[in-house]
Amino acid sequence: MINYPSLSPVESLSKQTRGRSVVNLASGSPDPSMIPLREIHGAYTQVISEYGRLAFSYPGAGGLEELKAQIKAWCKAIGVPAGGSKVVVTSGAQHAITLLAVAVAANRSYAHEDPTFPETLNSFRLLGKTPVQIPIDHRGAQLEILEQAFSKGKKFSAFYTIPVCHNPAGVNMSTDRRSHLAQLSVDHGFTCVEDDPYRPICPEPGEPIFSHSPKSVAYVGSFSKAVAPGLRIGFVLTANHRLANLVERLEQLDFSTSTINQLVLSRLLRSGAVSKSLEPLRSHYHMKLKAATDELVDNGLELVFKPAGGLFLLADLGVNAVKLLPKALRRGVAYVPALGFYARGRRKASGYARLSIGPASCDEIATGIRLIKKAILDDS
Amino acid sequence: MINYPSLSPVESLSKQTRGRSVVNLASGSPDPSMIPLREIHGAYTQVISEYGRLAFSYPGAGGLEELKAQIKAWCKAIGVPAGGSKVVVTSGAQHAITLLAVAVAANRSYAHEDPTFPETLNSFRLLGKTPVQIPIDHRGAQLEILEQAFSKGKKFSAFYTIPVCHNPAGVNMSTDRRSHLAQLSVDHGFTCVEDDPYRPICPEPGEPIFSHSPKSVAYVGSFSKAVAPGLRIGFVLTANHRLANLVERLEQLDFSTSTINQLVLSRLLRSGAVSKSLEPLRSHYHMKLKAATDELVDNGLELVFKPAGGLFLLADLGVNAVKLLPKALRRGVAYVPALGFYARGRRKASGYARLSIGPASCDEIATGIRLIKKAILDDS
Repeated sequence: MINYPSLSPVESLSKQTRGRSVVNLASGSPDPSMIPLREIHGAYTQVISEYGRLAFSYPGAGGLEELKAQIKAWCKAIGVPAGGSKVVVTSGAQHAITLLAVAVAANRSYAHEDPTFPETLNSFRLLGKTPVQIPIDHRGAQLEILEQAFSKGKKFSAFYTIPVCHNPAGVNMSTDRRSHLAQLSVDHGFTCVEDDPYRPICPEPGEPIFSHSPKSVAYVGSFSKAVAPGLRIGFVLTANHRLANLVERLEQLDFSTSTINQLVLSRLLRSGAVSKSLEPLRSHYHMKLKAATDELVDNGLELVFKPAGGLFLLADLGVNAVKLLPKALRRGVAYVPALGFYARGRRKASGYARLSIGPASCDEIATGIRLIKKAILDDS
Repeated sequence: MINYPSLSPVESLSKQTRGRSVVNLASGSPDPSMIPLREIHGAYTQVISEYGRLAFSYPGAGGLEELKAQIKAWCKAIGVPAGGSKVVVTSGAQHAITLLAVAVAANRSYAHEDPTFPETLNSFRLLGKTPVQIPIDHRGAQLEILEQAFSKGKKFSAFYTIPVCHNPAGVNMSTDRRSHLAQLSVDHGFTCVEDDPYRPICPEPGEPIFSHSPKSVAYVGSFSKAVAPGLRIGFVLTANHRLANLVERLEQLDFSTSTINQLVLSRLLRSGAVSKSLEPLRSHYHMKLKAATDELVDNGLELVFKPAGGLFLLADLGVNAVKLLPKALRRGVAYVPALGFYARGRRKASGYARLSIGPASCDEIATGIRLIKKAILDDS
């Protein structure tokens, strides 16, 4: 049984707004102004000069050794203890999750947070079966519901979680739940797939679930927020070597991580440019998130959860967010209705919108939120 | 039922020989000296200057429109009529084949040539079932055996073929078989997956199967031989829009084709640099293939098939090629035993070696073949 993916709500909106001039509170892209263009350009020139044609040869499965070493050092910089674990390089975190889902959830049951990001969930849906949804609150996944499922005899091969700056809810999983989840993964023999793309831009990300149990957790990292999404480089980190080897063999079916881009990223990491940007990145996104939160309050719009950082806020528009969207687009603002992120509680969620602070400036964020408010008033 | 891939014989050998100084007749990489380094470097500089940070944003599913337009023009230059068909950009041809295999062969039967390239076959094996092997001769796949299978009531969802400069056999499928295969795909309702990476370096590639039936054929193209494998860009071309859309949605699970590399390739194609290199590329590889053929004759080693071009020759070493390999490596030459490329006739194939003319120079090819001969003599 194959569940072929539909076009995601984010992609679908991106197609609708392509070429239109609207305030973009929809895209999950990071702020383009934070992409270190000069450093990246310099790294391309240096790598081409140093490696010549070798920089354009086949990458080999699982990533270049020199990049893997730099990724381990990077993990240390962001508070992820990588010693003793294996790194598999992938072409972006989304690719990593697809390979992991094939490795751990094919023809098997899996659990995930509700709401969650539909594009990554599609990777589990493709070959997995009998998904179990675990609702989240302001402290992340409600593990007592996971435990209830186990006590009813349910079994899962994998639990997919975004514990830091959740997409779309914006919350961090609490410290006690992280260690508890790690323990549950050991006790019940499932793999915890820890999707952690927002750690580099989160003010206080805390210890990853991975740090509590590196053998039962597959940690997925991304360079899309700390460097640039267009390089398409992410990674899997796990002390479960059997799983790492399987992911590496699956990566052989794609061979998709550009050699030159791996060398460029390796160079950027080695230079220290990326770790030095961590503090400025965190302040920048914190400032934008505050601008968005303040503007929502000023316009009498409620947050469903208080975000801990990252790119997303989940706002309750008080009207049907799907039906409002065409009017908001006419007013000049795009957002993603959050309904597509929810499996359960969809009646309540029909009023929710995922607002992104990635591509828009602080002024644009404020304008965008005012335009949403106007669209709501038009509607009433 | 998931058939997880093992490490391919080519990857496995590449791991064994990493860092060792041996004549490389194993790797399927193109000749590094033919990578247009200056033009590629120029294109990176131009693209970064023109697009700035946009060059490093998310690529969006299925490829950039401007690259898709350039790929259609490129198809015309290599004799593939793309009008009316849809292009989906992928991160390399291997990735394209993986997405196609998920789209057309998951939980279904498929057919393939025997021998064939195990790395691409692994993509069909992953989710497909009941493979049917169609032996090849010097004119490609023996379609009468495909027809016999149909007459026995067998059904396939897909037929995977490398009709030009076959890997590992080196042969071209004959013109009459190409049109016949296209007709069979219409009559029996299967998708012909036409893997055509060597067309840009083949002296006389002929018309693709795709040209006879663009709706029942998914044509897979690669830029690894005409530009560079390290960019990781390939594509699917088909007039079956339902299939193209499905592949695009599956690509959304990976999002793996680097934005900057797409823009760089688009620029290189638009400049005419790539089409201008077609003739020099074809002469260059023809010369190397002749050097290899002559040296095999001089050393009394037989070809299993006369190659029509491309990177590979299938040689009969007259001894067990798997057992000989460690001795050949000690002598200083690497090749890939062809046994791993065969499903049937494995007793006969145990003496065969796939020799690649990609990375080695003409002198190195001659040296390598002499070293293989010495290893055989050591052995006897």
